[in-house]
Amino acid sequence: MKPFPFQVIGGSITAPLGFRAAGVFCDIKRLGTGKGSNHGQKRDLALIISDAPAAVAGTFTTNRVCAAPVKLCVQRVALGTARAIVANSGNANACTGQQGLRDARDMARAVADACRADKFSPRDVLVASTGRIGVPLPMPNVKKGILDAARLLASGPGPAAHAAEAIMTSDTRPKEIAVEFELGGKKVRLGGICKGAGMIHPGMSPSGAPPALRPLHATMLCFLTTDAAVDAKHLQAALNEAVAKSFNRITVDGDTSTNDTVLILANGRAGNPPPAARRADARRFQAALDHVTLDLAKKIVLDGEGVSRFVTVRVAGAKSPQDADAAARSVANSALVKTSWCGGDPNWGRILCALGYSAAELVENKTDVGYSLPGRRDPLYSLKHGRPTDVPFAALCKVTAAPAFDLHIHLHLGRASAVIYSADLTEAYVDFNKGDITDPSSLGG
Amino acid sequence: MKPFPFQVIGGSITAPLGFRAAGVFCDIKRLGTGKGSNHGQKRDLALIISDAPAAVAGTFTTNRVCAAPVKLCVQRVALGTARAIVANSGNANACTGQQGLRDARDMARAVADACRADKFSPRDVLVASTGRIGVPLPMPNVKKGILDAARLLASGPGPAAHAAEAIMTSDTRPKEIAVEFELGGKKVRLGGICKGAGMIHPGMSPSGAPPALRPLHATMLCFLTTDAAVDAKHLQAALNEAVAKSFNRITVDGDTSTNDTVLILANGRAGNPPPAARRADARRFQAALDHVTLDLAKKIVLDGEGVSRFVTVRVAGAKSPQDADAAARSVANSALVKTSWCGGDPNWGRILCALGYSAAELVENKTDVGYSLPGRRDPLYSLKHGRPTDVPFAALCKVTAAPAFDLHIHLHLGRASAVIYSADLTEAYVDFNKGDITDPSSLGG
Repeated sequence: MKPFPFQVIGGSITAPLGFRAAGVFCDIKRLGTGKGSNHGQKRDLALIISDAPAAVAGTFTTNRVCAAPVKLCVQRVALGTARAIVANSGNANACTGQQGLRDARDMARAVADACRADKFSPRDVLVASTGRIGVPLPMPNVKKGILDAARLLASGPGPAAHAAEAIMTSDTRPKEIAVEFELGGKKVRLGGICKGAGMIHPGMSPSGAPPALRPLHATMLCFLTTDAAVDAKHLQAALNEAVAKSFNRITVDGDTSTNDTVLILANGRAGNPPPAARRADARRFQAALDHVTLDLAKKIVLDGEGVSRFVTVRVAGAKSPQDADAAARSVANSALVKTSWCGGDPNWGRILCALGYSAAELVENKTDVGYSLPGRRDPLYSLKHGRPTDVPFAALCKVTAAPAFDLHIHLHLGRASAVIYSADLTEAYVDFNKGDITDPSSLGG
Repeated sequence: MKPFPFQVIGGSITAPLGFRAAGVFCDIKRLGTGKGSNHGQKRDLALIISDAPAAVAGTFTTNRVCAAPVKLCVQRVALGTARAIVANSGNANACTGQQGLRDARDMARAVADACRADKFSPRDVLVASTGRIGVPLPMPNVKKGILDAARLLASGPGPAAHAAEAIMTSDTRPKEIAVEFELGGKKVRLGGICKGAGMIHPGMSPSGAPPALRPLHATMLCFLTTDAAVDAKHLQAALNEAVAKSFNRITVDGDTSTNDTVLILANGRAGNPPPAARRADARRFQAALDHVTLDLAKKIVLDGEGVSRFVTVRVAGAKSPQDADAAARSVANSALVKTSWCGGDPNWGRILCALGYSAAELVENKTDVGYSLPGRRDPLYSLKHGRPTDVPFAALCKVTAAPAFDLHIHLHLGRASAVIYSADLTEAYVDFNKGDITDPSSLGG
């Protein structure tokens, strides 16, 4: 394996030059503490600002019911440049009708007003929301939060970790990464934060595309920043490719959210020549972006609601890429397979069953099913050519009882392959999501 | 509503004239009690015999990985007549290769041998299995069971309830029904037994059809008997229609089994003229068959693994029947929606989200979501034209906290409608299916 052409560094979205980020508490869930920001409450509003106009790209949920901020971002990303991202947790601003669209626009305007010294227009502001569906945003709280965040950013770059915390919903920990690499002889940086936990089965399409006709399935938000100079068109192409290999390949529960959003801002502060000009640079940028998005995507699965085990489903030997994808998704989303993972069971019967009802071609007596520890290429096979092997049950269990393992499926029908990053289905997931009707505020979107 | 043109009577598959049924214990799971049949153990082998050659029809799983008995039945149902059905629980005889096919054929042969006095050939015997996947049948035990059952049937019709018990796996209770109605001036009877519990999302195609290319999703077995005279062609058409409205409209966990099988035998002992000759008779037969299959299908959902709540998802106003079906299935199989039902939560956000990622056309601000007690046409709406209503939360909860309720979704885009019978996803489902790797025999197929 070639060494990575980049280095993982500390921090996340403020590691690149010319970005500031803040996270504040403004009581979007209206818990009514009335104490303003950061009095022991989880932050719920994030603000990210680029000191210079940045090229922008985005991918968004293909759910036909898409939230107001998604509709706004699709329009604004098409403009090609942006200066700021404002995001809140606690309320998805989804299924909120015309009021929702006005509120999303008002959030952008409030940011432009609050950051007057930065001199950008509301159209330069991107908006994202996550949380409960169907409840109008408490705009006075949101505007107070934006003012607080802008005040913090007037005095410095702010800890990006606060922004990462502010977008969390049922996440148990913030998710961040940053890398540094060379582009056109200059050191550049790329960083990101994201959130996930439930409604995780993203299937995003590029910015500006109408909701796709194929059914797809997450609330996940991801914000990426880089000080590399990349033009918007190349940035969108690179993001499409990265998302296809990362966020669009994860599943927690098979439910595709109304709010999934990935945004990237490239402000050029590193002073490199745009990578589109040089093939090797374009490849290097793609490799760094792929690494960052895959790292963040895996962190979403690992921190999924009630998740106790991380399973990488690897399908090989499929007749077509579509078949490979369908086979992997069918297994990764099967309730019976996912509960067997919860028990650490090296099952092959339920897996063969899930393959059998997928849209993929399959010949029972050609199919292999094996298990390995993550990233190992020497699986222990429980099934070979459709027949159980004599690998001892205890040896298989040693692998599947680990907190993470790879499931290897070989169809022996062609050369196409696919990977899906999935997780087990646990009692904790059910308990968390069944809510408590005696406390309506506990009921998720 | 017109009165039912039939009466529900006691019993099940032996209510029609000329049918005998037995259920015995032969230790197919090899628990090793070694005590022969009925020593306090759950019965695990059922035998059903028609005293006369019967017209036969069947529908089978469309899972590409279909069990050996399914492959055998597809061929034998095509012959148009049969005399007997043998079925076992505890072992699915699925993914068992050539040995599995030999074992299924041997079961049929053992039945013909054991019932020598009835004078039929092995080709007149249909076979079904349910239980663990991938383990060869313990044929000595199976053959012993067949001998025991045949001995019981030599002396009388046997209690059909024993056969209903013998096909149970994780079912907590046997499922039976019988009806009586008039056909061509003669009283005829139709009865059935079935089992379900897990891997329930049947999508069966008529006997003889190759595995369908569309992905479909249950282990459910259902055996129907009638003393009506119906020719095999008309019987298959009637069964196709009945299954499309019953078993193919239920889901417990969205997993389609390798073994789903519905078989019907019509032995003509009632002496009616075949209903194909008279339209009114054909309609009456269909109505009776529809009632029996829907009753049995609902019993499967009610007794699904871990099920605490039965939910009828009714979609109306869809642009096409395909859209109505896709919308209803997307909601009925969403992990987030199903867990909200577990909590008795009158959710509409997750429902709108699941509709949004289905293949169905949808306009957010036209969509209604309402709740009613089963069969009531006056739902309380939580959402009207995409906006939350002011129906008090407590009033909605009163409906959704009931052990069964109807979910009404109106898309207001067309005239197509669809119904799916579903259930909640509970901690008990996860607990039951995660198994115990310290006890491999506990691990399901």
